[in-house]
Amino acid sequence: MKTLLKNARLLTMNEGEEIYFGDLVVEGSKISYIGENAPKGDYDKVIECEGNVLMPAFKDAHTHSAMSFSRSLSDDLALHDWLFDKIFPLEAKILPEDQYYLSKVSILEYLTSGVSTCFDMYYNPEEMARASIDMGFRTVLLGTVTKFRESVAEMKKSYLSINGKNPLVSYKLGFHAEYTATEEILTELSKLSHELKCPIYTHTSETPDEVNGCKERHGGLTPSEYFEKLGLLDFGGGGFHCVAFSDRDIEIYKKHGCSVVTNPGSNSKLASGIAPLTKFIDAGLNLAIGTDGAGSNNALDMFYEMRLSCVLQKLLTGKPEAFDAMLALKAATVGGSIALQLENVSTLSVGQEADIVMINLNRPNMQPLNNITKNIVYSGGKDDVKMTMVAGKILYMNGEFFVGEDVKEIYRKAQEITDRLKTA
Amino acid sequence: MKTLLKNARLLTMNEGEEIYFGDLVVEGSKISYIGENAPKGDYDKVIECEGNVLMPAFKDAHTHSAMSFSRSLSDDLALHDWLFDKIFPLEAKILPEDQYYLSKVSILEYLTSGVSTCFDMYYNPEEMARASIDMGFRTVLLGTVTKFRESVAEMKKSYLSINGKNPLVSYKLGFHAEYTATEEILTELSKLSHELKCPIYTHTSETPDEVNGCKERHGGLTPSEYFEKLGLLDFGGGGFHCVAFSDRDIEIYKKHGCSVVTNPGSNSKLASGIAPLTKFIDAGLNLAIGTDGAGSNNALDMFYEMRLSCVLQKLLTGKPEAFDAMLALKAATVGGSIALQLENVSTLSVGQEADIVMINLNRPNMQPLNNITKNIVYSGGKDDVKMTMVAGKILYMNGEFFVGEDVKEIYRKAQEITDRLKTA
Repeated sequence: MKTLLKNARLLTMNEGEEIYFGDLVVEGSKISYIGENAPKGDYDKVIECEGNVLMPAFKDAHTHSAMSFSRSLSDDLALHDWLFDKIFPLEAKILPEDQYYLSKVSILEYLTSGVSTCFDMYYNPEEMARASIDMGFRTVLLGTVTKFRESVAEMKKSYLSINGKNPLVSYKLGFHAEYTATEEILTELSKLSHELKCPIYTHTSETPDEVNGCKERHGGLTPSEYFEKLGLLDFGGGGFHCVAFSDRDIEIYKKHGCSVVTNPGSNSKLASGIAPLTKFIDAGLNLAIGTDGAGSNNALDMFYEMRLSCVLQKLLTGKPEAFDAMLALKAATVGGSIALQLENVSTLSVGQEADIVMINLNRPNMQPLNNITKNIVYSGGKDDVKMTMVAGKILYMNGEFFVGEDVKEIYRKAQEITDRLKTA
Repeated sequence: MKTLLKNARLLTMNEGEEIYFGDLVVEGSKISYIGENAPKGDYDKVIECEGNVLMPAFKDAHTHSAMSFSRSLSDDLALHDWLFDKIFPLEAKILPEDQYYLSKVSILEYLTSGVSTCFDMYYNPEEMARASIDMGFRTVLLGTVTKFRESVAEMKKSYLSINGKNPLVSYKLGFHAEYTATEEILTELSKLSHELKCPIYTHTSETPDEVNGCKERHGGLTPSEYFEKLGLLDFGGGGFHCVAFSDRDIEIYKKHGCSVVTNPGSNSKLASGIAPLTKFIDAGLNLAIGTDGAGSNNALDMFYEMRLSCVLQKLLTGKPEAFDAMLALKAATVGGSIALQLENVSTLSVGQEADIVMINLNRPNMQPLNNITKNIVYSGGKDDVKMTMVAGKILYMNGEFFVGEDVKEIYRKAQEITDRLKTA
């Protein structure tokens, strides 16, 4: 299958490259040409882009796809109450096969937001792996051991069974958080990380309370200091949220090549605070952006997260020039690829996987055209996503899904499961 | 023309009414029936709503429609620099007929966001009035005298020529801000307000600097205290932004029945601060929401403003339970109608103007259905606007515009004008 996407504005996200007019060719799952004029030849399909933007699809670098059941279920509660009183009791009732269906709703939502890839942290990762493969979506699965559920041994099994199975899915090591782990579990996880040479990711420093609790439990150490001590950062990886992050935490992340994944929608809705993104950038950390799950945010919308990243930094620093649009675009694309270790799914370049979004400029919120990257971040939205392509296949175009099954049936099944969880 | 909208979820926004299943009938520009089963009869048109939500269209209670030219033109600058160095010089070159075309782009954008009505503050209000009437959109025009442009005499002329001309447009008195006015102008304006018994609206207390400047100029008075002294609040009206609002300012607004119009997108992008919305609500002030113009925000998107209103209050107060979704929905609908004195364009009720938005629930970000009003505010977006109806006419449906002219021609004209403004 050879597809020509012609007459586009190309926003490659390669360092130093400006937007330019040109064509892009996809062969199989990869980009085989990008430039001003595609070679003449036999194409199976030609898509006229009408000057719309082609750019790398977004990477949602922190989410819990199966949590679609919890959307608008328990808003306006504090993080601890929300998690322990509302979410955990329902989660305890979820069957593995429920996750398969619940995750599909989230995959549809990612596609509407130009997301080709998510970093999915949840139990029974095989279910989201299956949903991703069946729909053609790309997912990096993340282990999520706690003292209540999952074990390091189970994670090793998932690591071995998922990695190398299908180019759309891979698996990394993770744990839910310091406050839901024991030192025994974390020590065992550290050993596994060294054995597999695999990075570890976790929720960290989401609230000042969490950091204070960790300090009390662990001789004054912040979560990052504690994780470093246990060898959990020796292969990089990263942290989600990082709201209450100290300068010392930033140094530790820098030293170990860890990525920060920011979740401004979730952090603001739960009143957790604003992560110091400008400090992360100044320190040279890799920054990625995630939506978090539908239970806390409640939208899996990368446009909202990008714009919120920018405006919250302006409020936090009191400087309207802080954290400009391009920083958000980079974090949502290249920064995500680095955090997820997806070197082959990053910029628009020959040889890269064809995970591409087409942004419609022929919408009133994009007109007139003064600065396209600022438009995308400051006035863009899901409404402007004309196409989302994953691994060379169009999964979403002009508001319609091409995921091999009836969307209404996906909704029906998710509603049935959600109703059962609430009443059981 | 008699249209039946059947099998909808009806969110009337009448106090105390829950969402219920039913039908709605539009005759001419008005709602003639709302209830569980519309009477059988001859309808010119029947729209099957498939369980989607019908609710009052949003009122964008503060905007500058002609400023579409300035979208993404000068981001990441402080308010004063942005306004005086970037916006004012270009504005000086705009011809009245330019505004007609530039405003049309914004009207299209409002429609995509479910907005039926805007409160438009700009020079030469006749141009936006004409654009609104030509496209079938509803606008309350607002005078905007400064010491540089427009006069109170001209405003009186606009008041008399616009009001009563067409049911889609009306005109109110306003001035740009304390810092761009003189006491002479404001005194003259106060007299006109008393003569016409017309409320006055203005930008006020947008930043702490503005308030401090006012205090220096006017013997320690805040803008609201100063305006009260000049009799500018005697017929109500209201203020835009109100970020640096004191408890005394709130009392003054309460005493005079003034509305607060919040603009969280603009205030956060310009690092102006967060308006204390929970205090306004606790004091019993009427609250409305506006997008501000495309130069500062840069999106004219009421979903973004509603969600931002909520999450910024949670951050400001440190309480995730602060300012819940329903408060945002009320401010964006009924609160806007009160602020704009549009008593006949408020809730879904018999006799009201049929300004209605249909929200598509068959989108992944709306699934599963746990709580529809929270869905609309916390995960909803323009993508979910299936239809926007103004005065009984469908102006936007399924992504297409029905505004009597070619949308691409509107874009072309706005781009041509913008390019001229930038190069002239």
